[in-house]
Amino acid sequence: MSNHVWSARPSDFLRVGDGFRLEESDPDSTPGFRGDKRAGERELAARSDVLSDLQERLFAGSRAGEAKHAVLLVLQAMDTAGKGGIVRHVVGEVDPQGVELAAFKAPTPEELEHDFLWRVQKRLPQPGFIGVFDRSHYEDVLVGRVRQLAPAEEIERRYGAIVDFERRVAASGIRIVKVMLHISSDEQKERLAERLDRPDKYWKYNPGDIDERLRWDEYMDAYQAVFERTSTPEAPWYVVPADHKWYARLAVQELLIAVLEDIDPQWPGADFDIQVEKMRLAAT
Amino acid sequence: MSNHVWSARPSDFLRVGDGFRLEESDPDSTPGFRGDKRAGERELAARSDVLSDLQERLFAGSRAGEAKHAVLLVLQAMDTAGKGGIVRHVVGEVDPQGVELAAFKAPTPEELEHDFLWRVQKRLPQPGFIGVFDRSHYEDVLVGRVRQLAPAEEIERRYGAIVDFERRVAASGIRIVKVMLHISSDEQKERLAERLDRPDKYWKYNPGDIDERLRWDEYMDAYQAVFERTSTPEAPWYVVPADHKWYARLAVQELLIAVLEDIDPQWPGADFDIQVEKMRLAAT
Repeated sequence: MSNHVWSARPSDFLRVGDGFRLEESDPDSTPGFRGDKRAGERELAARSDVLSDLQERLFAGSRAGEAKHAVLLVLQAMDTAGKGGIVRHVVGEVDPQGVELAAFKAPTPEELEHDFLWRVQKRLPQPGFIGVFDRSHYEDVLVGRVRQLAPAEEIERRYGAIVDFERRVAASGIRIVKVMLHISSDEQKERLAERLDRPDKYWKYNPGDIDERLRWDEYMDAYQAVFERTSTPEAPWYVVPADHKWYARLAVQELLIAVLEDIDPQWPGADFDIQVEKMRLAAT
Repeated sequence: MSNHVWSARPSDFLRVGDGFRLEESDPDSTPGFRGDKRAGERELAARSDVLSDLQERLFAGSRAGEAKHAVLLVLQAMDTAGKGGIVRHVVGEVDPQGVELAAFKAPTPEELEHDFLWRVQKRLPQPGFIGVFDRSHYEDVLVGRVRQLAPAEEIERRYGAIVDFERRVAASGIRIVKVMLHISSDEQKERLAERLDRPDKYWKYNPGDIDERLRWDEYMDAYQAVFERTSTPEAPWYVVPADHKWYARLAVQELLIAVLEDIDPQWPGADFDIQVEKMRLAAT
């Protein structure tokens, strides 16, 4: 973290702790960052190199069979909040060979025959990789709850199942970073209007987005319940103000850097005799 | 293609045609490009936007259920030739959500129980995606031939099986671009030496690379056979000089742009009533 632009670490002050209230988080704010959009964009570019370097070390360890760690970024948000932009402009800056993306849509008939965690388990990142979940098992306690797609007792059961699941995942070496991109209803309205105004954006618009929008408050309640029930030391939630795309990208970038710095991956040592190999090469 | 920097389209003059001889292709050359490394790097950045735009249109069509097309880039090369750099610096510039990477290593026991095309079939890109094969079914007629991992008759059979397979793949709407990154033995020696000199590169070095290097001429013969037997109108091979990384990246970028321009993906139309949706949104 460059101390001249951040007054504190986003991994500290964006973290959901005891007593967190979503309604007290302002989507239009840019907490902790001392600069404007231009400064933010400069910082994003500069910090991409740091993230890339850490990612390459993580990946190198996996190729050498040394890495035990992986990172899993879980992205949840209301429509238009900018999940795609995070994938493109934050994760997209590191080597794609070390990234595993999984976009979870409405479950297929086969997926519905299994427990809701079945399809998620299969897409966990391998050691050395940064996995990204674009939506996730949290849909099953968000849309699942708002749309009553399962009985209330089943929704209740899922919170506990998620906590157990994530604890096992974390114990296996996968560092979990859960992010809710938090936009305001007004900002969403503007972004949806833009999609209806631009022919190159029509494909991103779905009439169902309005149906979900009409249940905004219920979704916020469902998110609040998610934070209270599933933000754990092993798998904390971060609520990232997202009305300003540049800020959200920068904050998520710092969250990833922080977790990778904590893993502190090292270049693996040579598992061969360097001098012998130099001689073999010279002889060719 | 910017006509001021290219004297002709790489998709034309790098294509393997009748009578092609690999030994007549100079790995150190930069055919068709009028500039130097700096001009090449500028051009790569400028053309990334064009490639990104085409990729987004291709992807948009798939989300709207309209896309029939996908692109498959097959990358083959001797070690150190720069496959990873192509993935990182050419493909890595487009939205990762529209890319499917598949790196093929030595086959697993399960894979060996099936026909050699089984594992490849499973990783073909979905409509709307750019798929990248980092190594491929061609390993089975390259290392397979040089190392005699299968009887000569089986290697012979595979050329025909590949042509049939790729014809079916192409008929399904997947445009296949097969690239051999062509480096010289001298350049490989320098790059391997660098890996032995830098602790942050050790992880990329494998003593087995020297064993393969010692069979350089046999590999070149195996590539020549591949070109003669499997370069078809539906799935042409391109031999890209790769001693200059900047040139190889630029050339592969143009190959991808050419195939996407040929597909000419359009933004899908709205499958909803725009005015109705505007009113619904306004009422929220």
